[in-house]
Amino acid sequence: MRVFSTRGYRAGSVQNIAAEAGISLSGLLHHFPSKEELLAEILAYRDEEAETYVGSGDDVRAESLAGLIELVAHNQRVPGLVELFCVLSAEATDPEHPAHDFVVERFARVRTAIAAAFRDAEVRGLLADGVDPDGAAREAVAVMDGLQLQWILEGRTFDMAARLRSHLARTVRISQLDR
Amino acid sequence: MRVFSTRGYRAGSVQNIAAEAGISLSGLLHHFPSKEELLAEILAYRDEEAETYVGSGDDVRAESLAGLIELVAHNQRVPGLVELFCVLSAEATDPEHPAHDFVVERFARVRTAIAAAFRDAEVRGLLADGVDPDGAAREAVAVMDGLQLQWILEGRTFDMAARLRSHLARTVRISQLDR
Repeated sequence: MRVFSTRGYRAGSVQNIAAEAGISLSGLLHHFPSKEELLAEILAYRDEEAETYVGSGDDVRAESLAGLIELVAHNQRVPGLVELFCVLSAEATDPEHPAHDFVVERFARVRTAIAAAFRDAEVRGLLADGVDPDGAAREAVAVMDGLQLQWILEGRTFDMAARLRSHLARTVRISQLDR
Repeated sequence: MRVFSTRGYRAGSVQNIAAEAGISLSGLLHHFPSKEELLAEILAYRDEEAETYVGSGDDVRAESLAGLIELVAHNQRVPGLVELFCVLSAEATDPEHPAHDFVVERFARVRTAIAAAFRDAEVRGLLADGVDPDGAAREAVAVMDGLQLQWILEGRTFDMAARLRSHLARTVRISQLDR
């Protein structure tokens, strides 16, 4: 994570990773046969973690929006992962990037889940007037990604979770969703 | 712009750029002595363009928020630049990146200008109750950056300007600011 997040996925090498981990290149390749495989493991690891806060599939409720805030609070404690995802998401906009399909699919999945949470809030009368659940989901994802970029560039000097909460509080009755 | 935005700034080479431009490497280096210089020219070019929509320094008014929407509408017509800035901003989170200081300074400058626009809106009674101008500015920048990322990943299938407008309309009386 440190190598990919500081050098970028493309520029970071398995040699760098072996050196940072203090093992031989052949030792690293024994566990992870390729760089793509290392990346896939990191991506899958983080998504599993995210689902413990937000749920997935039929588990998604309006409460998942409060879960997003908890997830961001958690992310603030693992800045290396935040940096990796920030750089990787941008690098993977290139259709040739090995994680392109994964990242495109992941953004669609996250947005769909958050839209479902907003729709649940709508049904339960917790959504502000005139808010479109799909648009609100797109915006919430944008705010999270954009705040991450600022947070890294500014040396982690503000509270991303508090800022996301203040964003969500304008579209949904967030205080009724805290767990 | 095309080379940097598809390969990333780090991975893109002056050789690639000379080839895409159909000139020799020495011809390219005659006009732009280094890769850093090429990048600096692109960054400066885009910032000058942005200021024609938003203003700068004492020119910034609440109307600059409507200008931001126009700027995003303009950006949608130059997707190569959007991709370049998206990838570059993320790559430049690395303190070793040659554009790091520029990007950090640029984010601070943009955020300060947008906060000034929100403060002008506040003074003129155009801001929604309880909105903090500095927080709103941070959020607006985040929405713009996050939407750009989604827009590229989704193959430019939605209207970023309309989405930004809908975001701003919840904090400021945007319809009174159109020029």
